[in-house]
Amino acid sequence: MAEQKRSLDSIFKPRSIAVIGASRHKGSIGREMMHNLIEYEFNGKVFPVNPKADVIHSMKVYDTVLQITDDIDLAIVVVPKQHVPQALEDCGRRGIGGVIVISAGFREVGPEGLRREEELIAICEKYNMRMVGPNCMGVVNTHRNFFLNATFAPTPPLPGNLGFLSQSGAMGVAILEHARELNLGCSMFCSMGNKADVNTIDLLEYWEDDPETQVVLMYLESFGEPRKFTSLARRVVRKKPVLCVKSGRTLAGARAAISHTGALAGLDVAADALFEQTGIIRVGTVETLFDVAMAFSTQPLPMGGRVAVLTDAGGPAIMATDAIISSGMTMAKLSPETEEQLMEILPEEAAFGNPVDMLGHCTADHYKTALPMLLADPGVDAVIALYVPPVIHDPIVVARAIFDGARGAEKPVLTCFMAREDVLNGIKDLGRGIPIYEFPESAVNALAQMLKYKRFLDKPEGVVPILDVDYDTAAGIIDDAVTEGRDYLTTMEGFDLLEAYGIPVANWKLCMGPDDAAAFAAECGFPVVVKLMSPTISHKSDYGGVVVDLRSAEDVKKAVSRILEKVGQADEHIVVDGFLVQQMITGGKETILGVSTDPVFGPMVMFGAGGIYVEVLKDVAFRLAPITEADAADMMRSIRAWPLLKGVRGEDPVRLDMVQDALLRVSQLVNDFKRIVEFDVNPFIASPEEEKCLAVDVRFRLRLVNE
Amino acid sequence: MAEQKRSLDSIFKPRSIAVIGASRHKGSIGREMMHNLIEYEFNGKVFPVNPKADVIHSMKVYDTVLQITDDIDLAIVVVPKQHVPQALEDCGRRGIGGVIVISAGFREVGPEGLRREEELIAICEKYNMRMVGPNCMGVVNTHRNFFLNATFAPTPPLPGNLGFLSQSGAMGVAILEHARELNLGCSMFCSMGNKADVNTIDLLEYWEDDPETQVVLMYLESFGEPRKFTSLARRVVRKKPVLCVKSGRTLAGARAAISHTGALAGLDVAADALFEQTGIIRVGTVETLFDVAMAFSTQPLPMGGRVAVLTDAGGPAIMATDAIISSGMTMAKLSPETEEQLMEILPEEAAFGNPVDMLGHCTADHYKTALPMLLADPGVDAVIALYVPPVIHDPIVVARAIFDGARGAEKPVLTCFMAREDVLNGIKDLGRGIPIYEFPESAVNALAQMLKYKRFLDKPEGVVPILDVDYDTAAGIIDDAVTEGRDYLTTMEGFDLLEAYGIPVANWKLCMGPDDAAAFAAECGFPVVVKLMSPTISHKSDYGGVVVDLRSAEDVKKAVSRILEKVGQADEHIVVDGFLVQQMITGGKETILGVSTDPVFGPMVMFGAGGIYVEVLKDVAFRLAPITEADAADMMRSIRAWPLLKGVRGEDPVRLDMVQDALLRVSQLVNDFKRIVEFDVNPFIASPEEEKCLAVDVRFRLRLVNE
Repeated sequence: MAEQKRSLDSIFKPRSIAVIGASRHKGSIGREMMHNLIEYEFNGKVFPVNPKADVIHSMKVYDTVLQITDDIDLAIVVVPKQHVPQALEDCGRRGIGGVIVISAGFREVGPEGLRREEELIAICEKYNMRMVGPNCMGVVNTHRNFFLNATFAPTPPLPGNLGFLSQSGAMGVAILEHARELNLGCSMFCSMGNKADVNTIDLLEYWEDDPETQVVLMYLESFGEPRKFTSLARRVVRKKPVLCVKSGRTLAGARAAISHTGALAGLDVAADALFEQTGIIRVGTVETLFDVAMAFSTQPLPMGGRVAVLTDAGGPAIMATDAIISSGMTMAKLSPETEEQLMEILPEEAAFGNPVDMLGHCTADHYKTALPMLLADPGVDAVIALYVPPVIHDPIVVARAIFDGARGAEKPVLTCFMAREDVLNGIKDLGRGIPIYEFPESAVNALAQMLKYKRFLDKPEGVVPILDVDYDTAAGIIDDAVTEGRDYLTTMEGFDLLEAYGIPVANWKLCMGPDDAAAFAAECGFPVVVKLMSPTISHKSDYGGVVVDLRSAEDVKKAVSRILEKVGQADEHIVVDGFLVQQMITGGKETILGVSTDPVFGPMVMFGAGGIYVEVLKDVAFRLAPITEADAADMMRSIRAWPLLKGVRGEDPVRLDMVQDALLRVSQLVNDFKRIVEFDVNPFIASPEEEKCLAVDVRFRLRLVNE
Repeated sequence: MAEQKRSLDSIFKPRSIAVIGASRHKGSIGREMMHNLIEYEFNGKVFPVNPKADVIHSMKVYDTVLQITDDIDLAIVVVPKQHVPQALEDCGRRGIGGVIVISAGFREVGPEGLRREEELIAICEKYNMRMVGPNCMGVVNTHRNFFLNATFAPTPPLPGNLGFLSQSGAMGVAILEHARELNLGCSMFCSMGNKADVNTIDLLEYWEDDPETQVVLMYLESFGEPRKFTSLARRVVRKKPVLCVKSGRTLAGARAAISHTGALAGLDVAADALFEQTGIIRVGTVETLFDVAMAFSTQPLPMGGRVAVLTDAGGPAIMATDAIISSGMTMAKLSPETEEQLMEILPEEAAFGNPVDMLGHCTADHYKTALPMLLADPGVDAVIALYVPPVIHDPIVVARAIFDGARGAEKPVLTCFMAREDVLNGIKDLGRGIPIYEFPESAVNALAQMLKYKRFLDKPEGVVPILDVDYDTAAGIIDDAVTEGRDYLTTMEGFDLLEAYGIPVANWKLCMGPDDAAAFAAECGFPVVVKLMSPTISHKSDYGGVVVDLRSAEDVKKAVSRILEKVGQADEHIVVDGFLVQQMITGGKETILGVSTDPVFGPMVMFGAGGIYVEVLKDVAFRLAPITEADAADMMRSIRAWPLLKGVRGEDPVRLDMVQDALLRVSQLVNDFKRIVEFDVNPFIASPEEEKCLAVDVRFRLRLVNE
């Protein structure tokens, strides 16, 4: 790009809009678009464009945008697909800064559509015009300077502090409606459609410092440029929480995503790694997205995970307690002072522990008085107030009491009103001060996500260290293999490569026969392992080609001789490179360090419990390369076998610093050499003794084709 | 009980009712109860009882039930707690068959309340009167012969085919309201309160053959008699699905449950085992309970897990696909014939694979025509129809089309309408023929639960086998320990006990010194393990008391001598029972077989991956004892390390029959001897070779106090 792309202001903050394809036929998109702009009281001028109409909504209609003499910032295009290029060409000539293409029939319908979409992109580039869509449902900016509802959604958006972007138009409609039901408002909304120009990255950048947007919500089906996205997201998440539903999680789902949007969806493990590393909060469903957003948009972050539950009924309190414990938080232990205060104001039969059960005949005033007592307790980080309306009460009075009791609190308060819908609606009108859930589990989950975000913010950002390595030797090894047309490295090359990058390997030597094998074994110390090295055999064990736990020079000699004998007896001709004699490491834990490459996200570093368990239990963690020290530490902690590394039953912990260092070197290695597609060190022995933290076996796969 | 307890008919099918404590004060429970009975048009007579009132609702009021001359089946008691015993006494004298005690202030408020509750129980027993409550919100029977709404809930229940019982009164109110929102109706409802008499078991028995009740829903916080419940539930589940929310899952939750209902809540693992074994479908939340109930109450069970998705938008279809795969079902592969049929009727740009995406401009008729095509495909077991309303459509028309298209289908059809609430309400009025969800994941989860139930029904019921064992020897070993006041068995006793019950143990002998140790080792074959046996040492390894992998008689002698030497040097006086010499088993997989006793549910059999992994990864499965063959097979399959047992990388599978047999013998052992509180065989080696499937170590803990 020669020129810097224009800002998105012409799209989100227009002073005047042309609607190309405006219509007055009820039910047509051209009509709904006009209707929404006017009904929402857009602050600027609107010019309908349609050569077949004369007047729409009492407004003069133009044949083309070229006829309009006023300045135009934004054009909304709703004409049939074949007319879109001409419409955009006109916009470009007219100097319009942004377009929203609602029309469908592009990339999403196959090769012909893709060609048509590329035509649109070319026109936008020619005139440096920004485009949202095609195949989208439009954008919203609720700010009172604009009042822009440039969508055809039947539900007008509420103003609020959420910035919301959606990849799916259909989901966009559903989402706006659901948000309204929950009384959730947005600052801006964008249905991105095919993301031909304006994409997730543009919007995240645009909202990064927008003061109106305090929480970013995303519904995504694919990632465009994961590396750029990752570094941008790392920065934005430090400023405001970003919540995301990423669908296409499973392979079948990803296939559906491809057929749907024509985007190449990444494997889910890579997307999960991206979320972990950037601190984006991934939620499973749109329903959860809003439950969580309600809390983020109204409440301060909790400083810790000690939760107090205030209730008028036991059943939901038990459910809340279950959910609190299951999600890794704890039930706050109330101070004696708090308990005393509560005893003074609550009915004698109430339960003063936590949950604080005020019983069914408590009053709204009890909520109002007890809530600040819980909030003032230094052992309480957050309060969840539950209310099940008994016969006599008016829940709206209780809601008001809770709102009053929470006023000015610097700790989050979430509520659950197990009340009928119409009552809930009544409560909503009280304002948006405190999130109200229908079930205790939803409240707890929202709080747990806030705590997760808080803990992410509390961690140091972490840096990708630059470690001292022997780059030239490594490059030489890889180049040699590529020159020979090999897409793999031999074990010996692999060991050399690891050592060049400072990853220690258990003492080894390629020996040629029984005698030098025995001599080297004696030198490096027993027990040792002997492996037949042959480029023509893939299953060494068929020839007894791997012998472990050899405890004397004699045993080593015998083992080598026996392999030679078996190989000699074999039907086929077997090429023998020699015998790898290697120190056998005892007493550590087997781990696996590795790299695999995701077609969209690129190389990912892997860490896991080693040996056969990696295949069966799949106890592994992935992070996108390159990783920071914090990432490496996180990876070790996130596997289920973590307690094994820390030491159980009074064992010493393994040298975590050595494992972390090895992981960082793996990351640097794959970052330095794009030729490396995949490799694993399996096992890497993690031991309490530094000199026993060693790689034992390694496999490398290279890319021969240049990217 | 001398006398058989009365049926619950007088409670659920009364012809006449006395309301003791009836009132006309708005907001009082006595008034709401009267109001609900009359408003819901109860088919029989109602007699208000209240010495302080003369007329209520134009009805004559009686001072006590004794004054009423008509027959009375049921009395509802809403007087203050201190007057309840007298009221019940009057009911008993009057020959009333059933009472519902709404009043609170009993077991749930502590010892004094418990005493009061025991008084009520005694009165009910004296007159053979059945009681629901105390501390409950009443019962419902929607059958047109009764129209009984004996609750004080503000929402009148809809008639339907769900039998619903709730332990929590507060949850009962919330639950009835939520059910009504979803247009879900019940046949009967019971809020059990303190379960002083009528409990879960009574209701399950009562509904077992009730033709109006086709699905049973339960909200439970504790189990009363788990063993009785288990055998009853096994039977009922074969007749109709039983769905359950059991809260108090976590320890903290269980503590909240105790303080709330005074019931002893079981550990969650035992409850989970109970649900697995009985086929009761456990769901996590009340919200999910109803989502799942919607499907069960209206749809046939799927015959398999191949799901077709019909949609007008890509986004939700991706979400549905993700959820289908994640829940273990598969995307159906449509037959070429089905695809051809679809191509004939759908727009050219539609996607004809699965999901079948008819695109946003499809019509209601497309749904109506495409749905039967999918249902007719022999490769499709169920259909999920998704609909996101675009601008132009009326979702109610589409809903009608889907209902029409599914008419008469013998496969389940579930729908998801991502539409605004008021539209949803419009759809609901179409009737209860097909469940409608707001999010695709809820539809998929409901279908997955139906499939789980179907698979449970398809499995043979399983029997608890009676295996040939040497009971007398086992009894002798246990009696000896108890006589000596020991709450444990020695390793040797443990081995003898296992062998008496037919669980093979790796060849072993207690030897007294180096020479006989070496001799036995030579006899049983190398390698062997040597362990110091001493009642005074708990950590043998402190004295080098465990030596593994001894490969010669010489090594054995040396090892024993070295231990003797160390013990001799020790400061304290050490009692040496001898040296356990045992064959060392190589090449199998370590597993753990065991038993632990839950305070509520009794003994549970455990199976898991052995060694250190059992502690760290907690990869274990529990079932309540005694277990059936099917339970044992399930246990093996349900651990994560299952593939290791089946064999990975071309390994032979272990002898699963041997493991299963050992598990059944463990179950029989603990079932035969109530003295056994806890034991584990760790490891039990599971090997491909029958003669290598052996117990290697064992620990038993006994109960000295008689139960």
